[in-house]
Amino acid sequence: MAMENQYLSRIEEALASYLPAKDCLQKDVIEAMEYSLLAGGKRIRPTLTLEFCRVCGGDVQAAMPFACAVEMIHSYSLIHDDLPCMDNSDLRRGRPANHIQYGEDIALLAGDGLLTLAFETALSPESIKLAGAQRGAEAARLLAKAAGAEGMVGGQVIDLQHENQRAPIEVLLEMDRKKTGALIQAAAQMGCAVAGADQKQREAAVEYAACVGLAFQIRDDILDVISDPETLGKPVGSDDKNEKSTYVSLLGMEKAQQLVNELTQQAESALSAFSEDTAFLREFAQSLANRGY
Amino acid sequence: MAMENQYLSRIEEALASYLPAKDCLQKDVIEAMEYSLLAGGKRIRPTLTLEFCRVCGGDVQAAMPFACAVEMIHSYSLIHDDLPCMDNSDLRRGRPANHIQYGEDIALLAGDGLLTLAFETALSPESIKLAGAQRGAEAARLLAKAAGAEGMVGGQVIDLQHENQRAPIEVLLEMDRKKTGALIQAAAQMGCAVAGADQKQREAAVEYAACVGLAFQIRDDILDVISDPETLGKPVGSDDKNEKSTYVSLLGMEKAQQLVNELTQQAESALSAFSEDTAFLREFAQSLANRGY
Repeated sequence: MAMENQYLSRIEEALASYLPAKDCLQKDVIEAMEYSLLAGGKRIRPTLTLEFCRVCGGDVQAAMPFACAVEMIHSYSLIHDDLPCMDNSDLRRGRPANHIQYGEDIALLAGDGLLTLAFETALSPESIKLAGAQRGAEAARLLAKAAGAEGMVGGQVIDLQHENQRAPIEVLLEMDRKKTGALIQAAAQMGCAVAGADQKQREAAVEYAACVGLAFQIRDDILDVISDPETLGKPVGSDDKNEKSTYVSLLGMEKAQQLVNELTQQAESALSAFSEDTAFLREFAQSLANRGY
Repeated sequence: MAMENQYLSRIEEALASYLPAKDCLQKDVIEAMEYSLLAGGKRIRPTLTLEFCRVCGGDVQAAMPFACAVEMIHSYSLIHDDLPCMDNSDLRRGRPANHIQYGEDIALLAGDGLLTLAFETALSPESIKLAGAQRGAEAARLLAKAAGAEGMVGGQVIDLQHENQRAPIEVLLEMDRKKTGALIQAAAQMGCAVAGADQKQREAAVEYAACVGLAFQIRDDILDVISDPETLGKPVGSDDKNEKSTYVSLLGMEKAQQLVNELTQQAESALSAFSEDTAFLREFAQSLANRGY
């Protein structure tokens, strides 16, 4: 992203601080957790948690454990996604995937460890003291719901089931709503929950996050086409049976980008529910929609 | 176990009730979660949660979500343990392992789904309403801490690292304390947390669970020897380099069973901290220590 993320260094620092100490017999798995969790990235989800907490009038520091928890969930999902029995990817963010670096067994356990650490972090005594038990428990529950079989894990299953077939747009939307949308929505919702936001603000946050999440996914499909020299110039919507459905293959390039723009506008409109300055969230939505490869 | 567990049918019913509905595109993973979660077993951990809640004067029904949560964690750990990159076990409780039945990808995700469902269950609005937010958040945190890289996941890593070598007894104790002990202790502690038990009762619960957990593990090693016709009669402590250390190989059969008995007595003594009737917990400890194969 071209825009500046004022939260980035604080998020990085907090993520590192929540990892367990390595002076133990099982330090390999903690190193493997650190390898993936501190591998950089845009930190979209924690940024949304912190900023929605702020625009709802909450204490940003109280939202930090929840911001880091959602990033831990995202990080674990990438480790498990890359495993040989899943996408079998050797590379992640330009480095060897976790299981290439540490072996499949440690990578599996590092994913399990990060998933578990998310809840330990969200529910730590310090976190509950700052956020309050009621709000803290609610935020952690929103995260669990979004990450589980009715959310992200469910979306990954739908993805697996349609790996080598053309799915209709309804299935693609349902898959993305669960696979990536649910966690992005939970990130925004947790910020609201920690701030004790009212119903109107919570609904606006969900709408913003749903639109931004889907726009991000469609933009991903567009970038996949225009950044791949082999694909570039091929007729979109080719009936190659092994090709997965994408928004570009189903809608065409022009309509896909149009949808990205509409969703981004809808996200921006939702921000009228907040009286605090929402310039950052507007810019954030635009930067995700217009990002290059 | 020969003894009657009064909670068993309520636990089974509650576990089934917490699984997500199957009328969705990702029903495969929910079936796989159900396959392992409802596969029976002794339900040792949830029983401890419920009974410790009762002997601390708490509402057993309020402890049920936490009891089921710890069993979901146990169940996920078995699914991931059986995967080819871990123990590569085809059978579990006399049935095909989860990945044999559903494929490795779905089994991996079913494990992730159960791990996540544990926290969704523990932190559900109904659960928090019954237990109270402060106690509920504390119980869920105890579970996360025990299940993660400093607990169960850490113990599995220590186990992996000593697979083909003789570990000294200190390492064996540290491994079991984390791999199985931590979750059994969390089960007991959660019951105390939901009941709002005092410090003295919490410490007694931890001592009871630590002793019972270790006794259970040592008895497992004993049963492994006396139930295996090939091993039976072989000199204990044979220096076969491929053999893992066990309490029997390190201590000898007689001392191992003596330690089981001592730990069981210590567990029973710890129960003097409770004014409620602890006959069930005494009998429970004895039945685990004396169980046959």
